Amino acid sequence: MSQHADLAARAGDLDATSPLSGTRERFLVPEGVIYLDGNSLGALPAAVPDVVQDVVTRQWGQRLIRSWNEFDWWGAPERTGDRIGALVGAAPGQVVVTDSTSVNLFKVFVAAGRMRPGRPVVLTDGGSFPTDLHILSSVARLMDLEVVRVTHEQAAGAIAEHADRLACIAFSQVDYRSGELWDLPGLTRAAHDAGALACWDLCHSAGVHPVGLDEHGVDLAVGCGYKYLNGGPGAPAFLYVAARHQDAFDHPLTGWQGHAAPFAMSPDYAPAHGITRARVGTAPLLSLLGLEAALTAYDGLSMADVRAHSQSLTGFFLECLDGLGLDLPVVTPRDPERRGSQVSLRHPEAYAVVQALIARGVIGDFREPDVVRLGFAPLYLSHADVLASAQHLLEVLRDKEFERPEFAARAAVT
Amino acid sequence: MSQHADLAARAGDLDATSPLSGTRERFLVPEGVIYLDGNSLGALPAAVPDVVQDVVTRQWGQRLIRSWNEFDWWGAPERTGDRIGALVGAAPGQVVVTDSTSVNLFKVFVAAGRMRPGRPVVLTDGGSFPTDLHILSSVARLMDLEVVRVTHEQAAGAIAEHADRLACIAFSQVDYRSGELWDLPGLTRAAHDAGALACWDLCHSAGVHPVGLDEHGVDLAVGCGYKYLNGGPGAPAFLYVAARHQDAFDHPLTGWQGHAAPFAMSPDYAPAHGITRARVGTAPLLSLLGLEAALTAYDGLSMADVRAHSQSLTGFFLECLDGLGLDLPVVTPRDPERRGSQVSLRHPEAYAVVQALIARGVIGDFREPDVVRLGFAPLYLSHADVLASAQHLLEVLRDKEFERPEFAARAAVT
Repeated sequence: MSQHADLAARAGDLDATSPLSGTRERFLVPEGVIYLDGNSLGALPAAVPDVVQDVVTRQWGQRLIRSWNEFDWWGAPERTGDRIGALVGAAPGQVVVTDSTSVNLFKVFVAAGRMRPGRPVVLTDGGSFPTDLHILSSVARLMDLEVVRVTHEQAAGAIAEHADRLACIAFSQVDYRSGELWDLPGLTRAAHDAGALACWDLCHSAGVHPVGLDEHGVDLAVGCGYKYLNGGPGAPAFLYVAARHQDAFDHPLTGWQGHAAPFAMSPDYAPAHGITRARVGTAPLLSLLGLEAALTAYDGLSMADVRAHSQSLTGFFLECLDGLGLDLPVVTPRDPERRGSQVSLRHPEAYAVVQALIARGVIGDFREPDVVRLGFAPLYLSHADVLASAQHLLEVLRDKEFERPEFAARAAVT
Repeated sequence: MSQHADLAARAGDLDATSPLSGTRERFLVPEGVIYLDGNSLGALPAAVPDVVQDVVTRQWGQRLIRSWNEFDWWGAPERTGDRIGALVGAAPGQVVVTDSTSVNLFKVFVAAGRMRPGRPVVLTDGGSFPTDLHILSSVARLMDLEVVRVTHEQAAGAIAEHADRLACIAFSQVDYRSGELWDLPGLTRAAHDAGALACWDLCHSAGVHPVGLDEHGVDLAVGCGYKYLNGGPGAPAFLYVAARHQDAFDHPLTGWQGHAAPFAMSPDYAPAHGITRARVGTAPLLSLLGLEAALTAYDGLSMADVRAHSQSLTGFFLECLDGLGLDLPVVTPRDPERRGSQVSLRHPEAYAVVQALIARGVIGDFREPDVVRLGFAPLYLSHADVLASAQHLLEVLRDKEFERPEFAARAAVT
């Protein structure tokens, strides 16, 4: 039996016994597409189109302003937040859906600085997604803080080194480029031992990893609604403030929807009780209610099963690379306990390789400078998809398809 | 002929000669509803449902991540901004649709403070919509500024008094409660004479008044997408930075989408050229593209005609009140040149009066403490609607309908 046939048989076995078999039907993935970019924009959940149409034509169109009460639009940020909370290990009342990840990072960093006065240092990862670094630098400028950039390996040592000068650590649980899973429990503990706060960006872990915010005592966290949570393009982001910190969560975007009595129209600000104080202006309801509907794709699933299927998919992809004789450098850790839900590979012509794959219906993405980034969204991908994508990659490289001129031209959005 | 018949004949004449006759068909206003709350949530434009469905099912669902290029999702904030710019008198390249009004106010106030170092005073209106005051206080705390609250009458004197200590004025063009139109050209000139910047909130004027941002030399402005612009619940807001200030517009929400090279993934921030630097994170595209479609309701209209029809509607409403013998105190100026697109009345039982009107299909809103606020959106209201709503109000008051117990209970969102 060929190597490919062996792998196909194994894919069949793995798919037959996966705890997530059948969840693909909760999505409207186009025919002929293997979608490995759910970490950039998640696929469309089947529940979403009807809900959004109802929001537009009946709620907005027919009921107009009355929908704020009749459909509890007002409660959507907290209601959707609790749904996400259940996926990232947060008890109700600690997560709100609001604004973008960048805006939420700004709230978190200013609030963290104010919660730790006299501690001027913030530790972050120099390889973070840029918006995290940009926003942190902006807050540092406003509040006279010092940002120290470290690697994962240096982090624990740097926490100990800065100790009582450290306000907070600000890391991503999964590196957006390499797919490496950072040690959230250990670094959170180390930050607390130093008297500092632990702020985590969950953009690339929410929806594919149990996270365990409450269990690990994380203080503040943010994350994205449109990647593995499938909320649709630009779906609003979420913000977690541990219950014990909410009274002290003093953020600077003091919009009227975070007020204790928003309809009293007081000229003076008084923050709402609980996570509601992290709200700012009116949420984009078409996008927010689309996200709420999208989250029903997780109904009845355990995040342990989701994580197990995710690890199995990424592990099997590595097995396929080996089995098919594909020897590209793998950036992502091979240890499944140190891996998010993606596999990143290096290739000097990474951009063109990704374009050649897309032409074959295998949609991944490129990240500067030379990374082929393949995200494995566990709810709508099978081991059979994984093998097929590895086979396509093999053919693209073997036949040097990526050298075709049509794959060289860069699009505006890469 | 009765007074009502006279008014009906006059309404017929006014509607027959209005430059906006026929624009109501661009909206899906429910049968049996006279909608006087377009200044809180605009009605549904007929173009929106198909566009939003296409965005969800084809762009997101079928084309997935490729839509960023194929449908130029990336350019939507500036593209939609230019459409709004045309309605508020701003040449292209100065308006971007992004975030909420509150978040944009934060950017504007911090940037204004940085553009006028050594000038610690900001003048605002103590009766502003609360979010403006809350955000300004928050910025004042971060940047050590002093907020001075004045009335419209006091504004010019206060500008002269603070003169070279004044960083900026921060006013709303139309008072959200009274409907008074502030003197934007005069106060902008006065601010400039003092060396200060003029920041205007257009939430209650964009889409009903020509504004004339460029003509009057306004420096910075923000506004709402879901009121008279009809973008749908929570549609993103807009931000104007006059071209001459864009290079110096140094705001603190330095998200990756405002970067000069967002896909280079540099750890260091470099602001984009032009208005793009005011972008932060990924825009909520269902809501943003819904707003873009909604704006087509203005196609072919001149803002002078829109303003004329608006003034005619509010003027005719006052005429109906007088003609029908309704003598509630009118909060809104009777001079059409000092009036936005609303009429606000005082009544000790204002909340119940509004509820009784809603039960009759006349949807207005209540504002603390005793204001019946009626917004006249010129694109989907006629003089006949205006007369009918005055007649309903007459009957509600004459028959003391507002005293019915079912109209007393406050809803969560008022």
